[in-house]
Amino acid sequence: MIFIICIMNAVEIIKKKRNGGKLSKEELSFFIQSYLERKITDYQVSAFLMTVYFRGMDDEETLNLTKLMLNSGEIVDLSALKGAKVDKHSTGGVGDKTSLILSPQVALFGVYVPMISGRGLGHTGGTLDKLESIPGFNINKSIAEYKDTLAKIGCVMIGQTSTLAPADKRFYALRDVTATVDSIPLITSSILSKKLAEGAEALVFDVKMGSGANLQNEDESRELAKKLVSVSKKFGKKAVAILTDMHEPLGNNIGNWLEVEECIEVMNGALVNDLMKVNNVLAGAMLMLAGKAGSIDEGEKMADDVLRDGAVYKKFLEMVEVHGGSTDYIKDYKNLKRAKNSFTVKANEDGFVSGMDAYGFGLASVELGGGRKKAEDKIEFLSGIVLKKKCGDKVAKDEVVCELFAEDASKLEIAKELVNGAIKIGNENTFKKTLIIDIID
Amino acid sequence: MIFIICIMNAVEIIKKKRNGGKLSKEELSFFIQSYLERKITDYQVSAFLMTVYFRGMDDEETLNLTKLMLNSGEIVDLSALKGAKVDKHSTGGVGDKTSLILSPQVALFGVYVPMISGRGLGHTGGTLDKLESIPGFNINKSIAEYKDTLAKIGCVMIGQTSTLAPADKRFYALRDVTATVDSIPLITSSILSKKLAEGAEALVFDVKMGSGANLQNEDESRELAKKLVSVSKKFGKKAVAILTDMHEPLGNNIGNWLEVEECIEVMNGALVNDLMKVNNVLAGAMLMLAGKAGSIDEGEKMADDVLRDGAVYKKFLEMVEVHGGSTDYIKDYKNLKRAKNSFTVKANEDGFVSGMDAYGFGLASVELGGGRKKAEDKIEFLSGIVLKKKCGDKVAKDEVVCELFAEDASKLEIAKELVNGAIKIGNENTFKKTLIIDIID
Repeated sequence: MIFIICIMNAVEIIKKKRNGGKLSKEELSFFIQSYLERKITDYQVSAFLMTVYFRGMDDEETLNLTKLMLNSGEIVDLSALKGAKVDKHSTGGVGDKTSLILSPQVALFGVYVPMISGRGLGHTGGTLDKLESIPGFNINKSIAEYKDTLAKIGCVMIGQTSTLAPADKRFYALRDVTATVDSIPLITSSILSKKLAEGAEALVFDVKMGSGANLQNEDESRELAKKLVSVSKKFGKKAVAILTDMHEPLGNNIGNWLEVEECIEVMNGALVNDLMKVNNVLAGAMLMLAGKAGSIDEGEKMADDVLRDGAVYKKFLEMVEVHGGSTDYIKDYKNLKRAKNSFTVKANEDGFVSGMDAYGFGLASVELGGGRKKAEDKIEFLSGIVLKKKCGDKVAKDEVVCELFAEDASKLEIAKELVNGAIKIGNENTFKKTLIIDIID
Repeated sequence: MIFIICIMNAVEIIKKKRNGGKLSKEELSFFIQSYLERKITDYQVSAFLMTVYFRGMDDEETLNLTKLMLNSGEIVDLSALKGAKVDKHSTGGVGDKTSLILSPQVALFGVYVPMISGRGLGHTGGTLDKLESIPGFNINKSIAEYKDTLAKIGCVMIGQTSTLAPADKRFYALRDVTATVDSIPLITSSILSKKLAEGAEALVFDVKMGSGANLQNEDESRELAKKLVSVSKKFGKKAVAILTDMHEPLGNNIGNWLEVEECIEVMNGALVNDLMKVNNVLAGAMLMLAGKAGSIDEGEKMADDVLRDGAVYKKFLEMVEVHGGSTDYIKDYKNLKRAKNSFTVKANEDGFVSGMDAYGFGLASVELGGGRKKAEDKIEFLSGIVLKKKCGDKVAKDEVVCELFAEDASKLEIAKELVNGAIKIGNENTFKKTLIIDIID
């Protein structure tokens, strides 16, 4: 008989997970607390994160990890607001700009939309960067101001403050530099610890699938969707995950101001089918969770109606104003604002667009100045890509497929190559796309 | 088509290995060099080590990693010594004391035995700690003194200097605190980078199998043995690995001076069958690699002969003297030196000893003061365990099975429990032991 000596220490905890064991609440708590108190080092945490990458975590472990991250900081109390509080979170995509539309849209129905967003990451854009392309828009509100704005206009969009889930902030910084970002339990706990801290009582997850998603494996995306929903429910939150397509960019514009502009156009009656479909399904799910619609379908129809009648645009202007953003700049949207240099990508043959690889377009947008390669890089808000054709469209040789914009002409070169590599033209129209792949609740 | 952007950076290298890729010589070199130049952090290296734990490394990667660790420091040049230079390395066990016997034994045949040893690790003992139980024995020789001693008497036993494989030293310190010790490519590169630095041209590996080994899984021990031999050969070294049993402790004594004492007894004619068998097979393999014997069997016989004629003891005393150790203390070995407090463990029933779990005995020896729980712990040289019975022996109720020794009486308590848990007595003699499990060359 071998004696098992139980010592609560970092190495034993890492080893237990490494050997496929399940970590107890006490073990996870000891590990996270000790890390926050700097008794466990970064190098032990990075080894731990890598074991979690390989071994995973079950729902209970993920729940406990999320709780610990959540409880490492302030949890916003929105109980003073009478009415449903519902937020949406996207796992990130290229041209994914729905937050800008659905926040004011859902708020119109008397639902509070408390939204704390992130910056662009890798090839995918971020809501905060898009908002900052509006001159004056301030995403750095205190929690008091955040609550105040939400109470006043029903929606608010800020960045993560240092008081919300600080453990996640330290974990995330480490994951980013140790190749441990794409782990489902780590993504889940990171997303949920922030989303639960912001005070929402129901959550809609837009989980992207395809080359432009952050998880490029479809099974993993589906697993993430399930985990987000099941762990949210363990916290007593209502939750739905919508699996949406991210093989080609969403909508026509990629890049910060270019995406805001497209949203303004849609809020003023322009028809961008794929963007509107995804946006309205997400908004519909939010309305359903808020008890305003009996089903996602019914919610989608309600969302579609207000989008078409111009009310969303008014609410959007109200939100921009309360955040200090220039509404004049917004209203001037028809006077297309573009970076100095441009390049027109044309079809080199007749046929049908059979592929617009979202990952390639995302990388190209970063190259043009629309994203960051290093944390300290400055974003050029008017750079990016405008698509003139989408998958399934017929093209003639020399017809324009897309336009690239950059402040610095030299940046067009590598973006051109990336975009050319991302576009596929075939002889027949073989394109079949399912925008809404699945709904998990 | 997606563009693959190749950037040589730490995260990409970790990710490549994490995703099951094979690292090139250039990638490994960049990673290790950058770490030594402190451009890559400890937390990135620990994530890397954990990916290697999960993904492994093939022979070529292990070879390249070993080369980089080896070349991070000085490589001792023993070419001035005419004659074979052969060393033995054990993966570590309980009561494993063969280095003390076979070094002088093999040196008697005109073979140089350049040996750089380690300290006790976990439940297993270390040669340096055993040597230091001899008053005055100095294991801290410079490389110049090391070469000088070797040239003069044919054998030498020192600790790792700061100039040999410093990259391994940093890696090892990190592995120890991040649960990444028991990875076959990491163990292989760690052992070989040190062994190749010490100047030997042929290596015998004693790879332990069983509960008292550092790798407790037998398949892994076998894999390690193969890797040690194949990578050694890629360095142009002759190599043999002997898989030996470590289910029960080797020999009768466990603990530092207690083990030295047992070796002295064996060198003076005492018969300790299992210890002598393993020792002589290892010595035989060394003689075979040195070209002094045509086979391991022949070498074993030669080793056995010199052990019985007293010559080994003389050479051992010579080595102790040249290291500054007290030969008077050695010669006084019959005057049994023991820690102040003792406890006699007796059989609680009639029968046969069917198990003496080496892991349990190893832990008990550490508890008694014979090993360290923390790096800064001081070893008590006269503490430990003397076995009076071994597996397969008949015992009567209340007959002595073993004796425990500790300077501090309170330390006997937990050791008693560990030892009681480690001893199994059955009705019939079911014991079957193979000391030499396999030979891999």
